[in-house]
Amino acid sequence: MCRWLAYTGEPLQPSTLILDAQQSLVKQSLNSQLGAETVNGDGFGLGWYPANEAAGGIPALFHSTEPAWNDENLRELAHAIESPLFFSHVRAAAGPPIQQTNCHPFRYQNWMFMHNGFLGDFLTMKRDLVLAVDPSLYPDIKGTTDSEVVFHLALTYGLMDDPIEAMRQAVRKVESVGHGLGVRFPMQGTIAISDGATIWTFRYSSQGRSRSLFHSVEIDTLREMYPEVERLNLFGRRARVVVSEPLNDLPGAFLEVPESTVAILHESGYQYEPFLEAA
Amino acid sequence: MCRWLAYTGEPLQPSTLILDAQQSLVKQSLNSQLGAETVNGDGFGLGWYPANEAAGGIPALFHSTEPAWNDENLRELAHAIESPLFFSHVRAAAGPPIQQTNCHPFRYQNWMFMHNGFLGDFLTMKRDLVLAVDPSLYPDIKGTTDSEVVFHLALTYGLMDDPIEAMRQAVRKVESVGHGLGVRFPMQGTIAISDGATIWTFRYSSQGRSRSLFHSVEIDTLREMYPEVERLNLFGRRARVVVSEPLNDLPGAFLEVPESTVAILHESGYQYEPFLEAA
Amino acid sequence: MCRWLAYTGEPLQPSTLILDAQQSLVKQSLNSQLGAETVNGDGFGLGWYPANEAAGGIPALFHSTEPAWNDENLRELAHAIESPLFFSHVRAAAGPPIQQTNCHPFRYQNWMFMHNGFLGDFLTMKRDLVLAVDPSLYPDIKGTTDSEVVFHLALTYGLMDDPIEAMRQAVRKVESVGHGLGVRFPMQGTIAISDGATIWTFRYSSQGRSRSLFHSVEIDTLREMYPEVERLNLFGRRARVVVSEPLNDLPGAFLEVPESTVAILHESGYQYEPFLEAA
Amino acid sequence: MCRWLAYTGEPLQPSTLILDAQQSLVKQSLNSQLGAETVNGDGFGLGWYPANEAAGGIPALFHSTEPAWNDENLRELAHAIESPLFFSHVRAAAGPPIQQTNCHPFRYQNWMFMHNGFLGDFLTMKRDLVLAVDPSLYPDIKGTTDSEVVFHLALTYGLMDDPIEAMRQAVRKVESVGHGLGVRFPMQGTIAISDGATIWTFRYSSQGRSRSLFHSVEIDTLREMYPEVERLNLFGRRARVVVSEPLNDLPGAFLEVPESTVAILHESGYQYEPFLEAA
Repeated sequence: MCRWLAYTGEPLQPSTLILDAQQSLVKQSLNSQLGAETVNGDGFGLGWYPANEAAGGIPALFHSTEPAWNDENLRELAHAIESPLFFSHVRAAAGPPIQQTNCHPFRYQNWMFMHNGFLGDFLTMKRDLVLAVDPSLYPDIKGTTDSEVVFHLALTYGLMDDPIEAMRQAVRKVESVGHGLGVRFPMQGTIAISDGATIWTFRYSSQGRSRSLFHSVEIDTLREMYPEVERLNLFGRRARVVVSEPLNDLPGAFLEVPESTVAILHESGYQYEPFLEAA
Repeated sequence: MCRWLAYTGEPLQPSTLILDAQQSLVKQSLNSQLGAETVNGDGFGLGWYPANEAAGGIPALFHSTEPAWNDENLRELAHAIESPLFFSHVRAAAGPPIQQTNCHPFRYQNWMFMHNGFLGDFLTMKRDLVLAVDPSLYPDIKGTTDSEVVFHLALTYGLMDDPIEAMRQAVRKVESVGHGLGVRFPMQGTIAISDGATIWTFRYSSQGRSRSLFHSVEIDTLREMYPEVERLNLFGRRARVVVSEPLNDLPGAFLEVPESTVAILHESGYQYEPFLEAA
Repeated sequence: MCRWLAYTGEPLQPSTLILDAQQSLVKQSLNSQLGAETVNGDGFGLGWYPANEAAGGIPALFHSTEPAWNDENLRELAHAIESPLFFSHVRAAAGPPIQQTNCHPFRYQNWMFMHNGFLGDFLTMKRDLVLAVDPSLYPDIKGTTDSEVVFHLALTYGLMDDPIEAMRQAVRKVESVGHGLGVRFPMQGTIAISDGATIWTFRYSSQGRSRSLFHSVEIDTLREMYPEVERLNLFGRRARVVVSEPLNDLPGAFLEVPESTVAILHESGYQYEPFLEAA
Repeated sequence: MCRWLAYTGEPLQPSTLILDAQQSLVKQSLNSQLGAETVNGDGFGLGWYPANEAAGGIPALFHSTEPAWNDENLRELAHAIESPLFFSHVRAAAGPPIQQTNCHPFRYQNWMFMHNGFLGDFLTMKRDLVLAVDPSLYPDIKGTTDSEVVFHLALTYGLMDDPIEAMRQAVRKVESVGHGLGVRFPMQGTIAISDGATIWTFRYSSQGRSRSLFHSVEIDTLREMYPEVERLNLFGRRARVVVSEPLNDLPGAFLEVPESTVAILHESGYQYEPFLEAA
């Protein structure tokens, strides 16, 4: 129901990927090629770990309910800042209203979270899922999306200690609550999580037919493949991006993340881990 | 934390009271005389029972996050419609974010609800109160205000059958949950409720020092008192209004609703009932 | 660059056409079939002559910068009112910013105006066109669109006395200014104008390849053609609509307005007049 | 009709002045002490020269139509960035609508401009003033404020070569046009202009009773005066601010800029020049 992008590497202007790329995230907002919806115009978000040390490792958020494609503030901001790790998200609402508190990414302390997809029959499951959130975390839920509830379930299950295992438990909880209430496919989507150093991205759905997800190949490889593409010089050697659909049509530039898999971006490269078997 | 106004009587353009009156609700939004805050600029709402029969007795809502004082759409709408019963509310947010789903009035079927005031230490009480809402009503909570939770508590306790008793139970629940969690004064405020025919207005606070509330005197009486005031000819004989602070400075035009009291507006006039003793 | 709809006939809830029709205007906003753009998500407007006599024949306007497809206020309003003559417009911005003052329809006294299309190289022509607007009308230009300038040119040339001749002069002025500045195709689009009783709709472009425009056939004819379509009973016998693209796929329900033509909707039916030969 | 603040010095988080100061700009938006209006809730703006060299000396702008006091994006941004020179402005609209294109500061290439005050009877003067703008600059006028017209007049008269003399000519033009049209006091206000290195601030009104304007004293002096005020350690030795009203109540911390004066902030300190005699 959305499209998203996560970048890590040398400090970069977000505009390079979300505005200027051939099939940039903002172009995906108006005309997605691989998304469940063509138009993702129900608000957007940008979350970035500032270079600014005064920020203390806490990511900054910019949320807007406007479509991304004509938003002047996004244009300004995406050029004015540089960040070594940022998330960006364009939304196609699947029920919860269009308001800033429903815009991704969400934040908890130094952690960010965003999601493309949905919980099946969320209003049926919502109360039980919210009850499973740790009472001390409950007041931190600011909006009304299924995604933010999943984030708080994962926090409840220890996201800050072991993000992959916490996400497994969160998804299993969604599926057990859903199946108990007669929801056939409770979980759908791709998710990105970061603590400011590592990015964990998940591709999973109860149905085994998950939303699309890709990651870039190593920039050195890409430069060898396409020595004539000058645009590649904009990126440092550690630049890596995970994104809902490829940012350009260069064959081989983006690889699909397999189903039921976690793709982890470290400073040293990508790494896959199996996530869960589809329910 | 807010100001509100409820009208019943002959069909009237809402602009008469919310824009054109000497101390209209929109003027109260920019410069309240009796409010806890001077400025009530965090959005507004207008809810009205349309003359239009096609609407089937369901009130229509217009919610905006803009300050009321310069909102063009409010100006247009408040002149273009006429309604025999409408609510209007200007908000000064006390925590929950500025978004349309947090704007009053709230609606459930043919019922409307609005509130000026707050629940003490709401984030502490929120989870317990939300759990007390009937699970079948839970998915209907669209925003994140304390006010909407009180509305759904009252719906849980039978608002549609006996609004006064249901509100008593809702307030007692707020107070018992609050006192259990160490909140000294859990409930504060004035509340208006309607089913499209009658308006019930409540003035109550746990502290016994409630937000201000007034109602107009009978229009015939007022015309006798002020035969020279031409503006009074705008109103029919059944025109009655309850409002957070008087809409003009005509002595005797508005009477204060006593503490811990329900003021009921029927077609035939006002009626008081005791509500609750302050906790 | 936009899609629009103009209705006249028995008082009707605008929702019938802009929300509920098979290919309603709001569906056209998200997925236009015949438009120059697929997405028309850069705000919308609704202008209606209220049944309310207190409004004095002045149309009311509701303008929003949000996409129409998820706007709650539009849903509420379009159900709550009934009007014998209304305009609605969804915008795909072609340069001028997304702001309420750039939303159609525009209003001058009891007149409304809306436009789908654009002036070629508008920023080049703008100063000369604005200078041609009567100085007494100049302060009434509230936004920054090409469309509003065309409206004020037509007002300058006597729109309120002879709308067709005034529009001819306005378009000729646009073309003479444009050609003088090297703009090949200065005028493009379809335009609707009303005084509250008659609707004039224009289809014209300098290039002779104008944006699409259709009008409904007489409702009696339609009921004979499709006796089994219950939805047709929602409409009175005088119901007529002009719209950028057909509101349903019933063959024969909508007829294309020819190029360079004015289609006039009276209470008694449609009438065509030639407009201008393409420049 | 507004309040503004201009900072130059060591790179600083704008939040230090616009959010955290005792009488910060955001506090002035809700409750101005010295302003012509108490409430400045009709949008705001932040313009900053990014540390980011990729920005090429062009300031970035963030404009919002929301009141500043509850805007989450402003809070995020004002903490996340650091800038050696920034402008911030809170607006109380005096006619022109609430839209992002009417939010200050305005920008032209590497120049920023903001204004507190108004042009007397602007709609009467507007056409003549706009005609005096160089036709090549005319298309750059994006909004509908008097302030942006003054900026473009000054650009027409050579702002980028000699800002003080260009502003003199712009104000004289406003006054001659105004007097020709019977406007008694055409010009009112305080203005800030920067090229990214120097800030020029102007205090002037035709009436000789101009909006308030203050500048900070040297930080070394302030630290000697108030060695116990720890907050002063947040600032570098070159930190200087010009602001509509003092940011705190420390006696001697802020000095009033005299009437009809230009206060210039260099890296080396303040400097005054006479501007114009009141007309």
